[in-house]
Amino acid sequence: MIHVQEVVTRDGFQMEPSFIPTEEKIRLINELSVAGFSKIEVTSFVSPRHVPQLKDAKAVLNGIEKNPNVTYVVLVPNEKGAELALQSPVDELNLVMSASATHNRANVNRSHSESLDSFSRIISMARSANVLANGTVATAFGCPFEGEISSDGILRIVDSYLSMGMNSFTLADTTGMAYPTQVEAMVREVKRRFPEIPLTLHFHNTRGLGLSNILYAIEAGADRFDAALGGIGGCPFAPGASGNVCTEDVVHMLSNMGFTTSVDLDHILSLARELPKIIGHATPGQVAKAGKRLELHPSPF
Amino acid sequence: MIHVQEVVTRDGFQMEPSFIPTEEKIRLINELSVAGFSKIEVTSFVSPRHVPQLKDAKAVLNGIEKNPNVTYVVLVPNEKGAELALQSPVDELNLVMSASATHNRANVNRSHSESLDSFSRIISMARSANVLANGTVATAFGCPFEGEISSDGILRIVDSYLSMGMNSFTLADTTGMAYPTQVEAMVREVKRRFPEIPLTLHFHNTRGLGLSNILYAIEAGADRFDAALGGIGGCPFAPGASGNVCTEDVVHMLSNMGFTTSVDLDHILSLARELPKIIGHATPGQVAKAGKRLELHPSPF
Repeated sequence: MIHVQEVVTRDGFQMEPSFIPTEEKIRLINELSVAGFSKIEVTSFVSPRHVPQLKDAKAVLNGIEKNPNVTYVVLVPNEKGAELALQSPVDELNLVMSASATHNRANVNRSHSESLDSFSRIISMARSANVLANGTVATAFGCPFEGEISSDGILRIVDSYLSMGMNSFTLADTTGMAYPTQVEAMVREVKRRFPEIPLTLHFHNTRGLGLSNILYAIEAGADRFDAALGGIGGCPFAPGASGNVCTEDVVHMLSNMGFTTSVDLDHILSLARELPKIIGHATPGQVAKAGKRLELHPSPF
Repeated sequence: MIHVQEVVTRDGFQMEPSFIPTEEKIRLINELSVAGFSKIEVTSFVSPRHVPQLKDAKAVLNGIEKNPNVTYVVLVPNEKGAELALQSPVDELNLVMSASATHNRANVNRSHSESLDSFSRIISMARSANVLANGTVATAFGCPFEGEISSDGILRIVDSYLSMGMNSFTLADTTGMAYPTQVEAMVREVKRRFPEIPLTLHFHNTRGLGLSNILYAIEAGADRFDAALGGIGGCPFAPGASGNVCTEDVVHMLSNMGFTTSVDLDHILSLARELPKIIGHATPGQVAKAGKRLELHPSPF
């Protein structure tokens, strides 16, 4: 079983130029909640000045109909965000630090030790509230400022995450720099070192390699992947490039290859085809345009 | 060494709505000729009524500066096309029959045996002119009318091709229905049966799987791939979907993974970035937008 985890309303929507109405977000999450995902990253408690698109985090979390089979996640950047998140019905906090010190400074204006200290306090808060914590290592496959990231650095961060009590962790290819053999080697190393801890891979399709990276990660033993409906969610460094790896393209690929996912492909295809109306522009996803491979056309004869 | 073969001015341009001036085509092919490709499919001698975009086939072939290290290919659909092609400076004719009888009838209005009879006559003509012949099996990984295509059917066609004297053959995923494990199994079977004959794989990225299919084909022993600059060239069944697998994305992937190609990535990236001006619209290629993975950005500090 491969777990596909939906992030469209957080990582997808956060870059959208026009505000998506709260009720549209709630409607979409309610649909995603019954489409078979085990985990949905709903929103983020970040500064509404920095990310106005997600300023309705509280209203969204309180407005959705939760499915008990789904883990609902929110991203929190700091204690203040965690405090707000824990006042809402959430199952898991996602805490993000970049493996690249430069990227972490640019993203959250913190050193590594400042990020880790803060995570440690947030985990105590989450524990008291009976909420899980997932630690994400951003720029795990390369940093747009620093370039290559050593696997030693990644392992050290995951070590810190787990010793402070994170329940699971994610390696994120924040700006789409991962390539298949790199992914395979990294996943093997991480799985060897932390075989029991749930590992998610979060890929962006910025350079076209999202699906290939997933296949090589599976080869190396990974079984949890973030993806965004329609493949939306971009990167400020790559205008016009693709965003997150596309949920329906991932599920279509996996199901053709004989893997089981719990996701209902027809359901998410119909949602993916509504997405351009919701966000006001076309999306990078392919299968929503082309149809499933065996959706045949009438013979011309 | 992985051979990347450029098809943009044939399979890419043939679907473009506005006519690309002959001198633009010649300029682009002259650039591609010095970018390291071993083979370039230049154009096609098809009916100018059906494919007006390529009505200048003769002028293009006579206008380009040929590089002796490049095999220049033209696609021909019938004897008339072959006759015209052989009056021009060409190195190889590409002959195409669909594995699906329905698709072959829809595409060229011929039965399999009519196509094969005609190919046999064309090969005699080509031999007399000292020109090579490549046989393409279209819809080799699925047909939009018939669905799945049996590997037996493919092997029978390749057998016919080789017994009539084709020098090489191509398995083409004409409408983007191939998926990685299917490709791997098919390439293994074909390589086992015809180990000595040059085999090209021609993938479209219609459902996002072009790059993954190439990687699984390489696993199975393939080393020749068609690709189109910018990933252009669509399929009438999938409006808005991606076209051919994108040359610069393929070369970028392979070079990051440590494979050698003879293609100069920087050169083709600069050509890919000119392509939207030539064709008048954006292209699906990713690396031309995002930059190579280690093209770093200045630190904000």
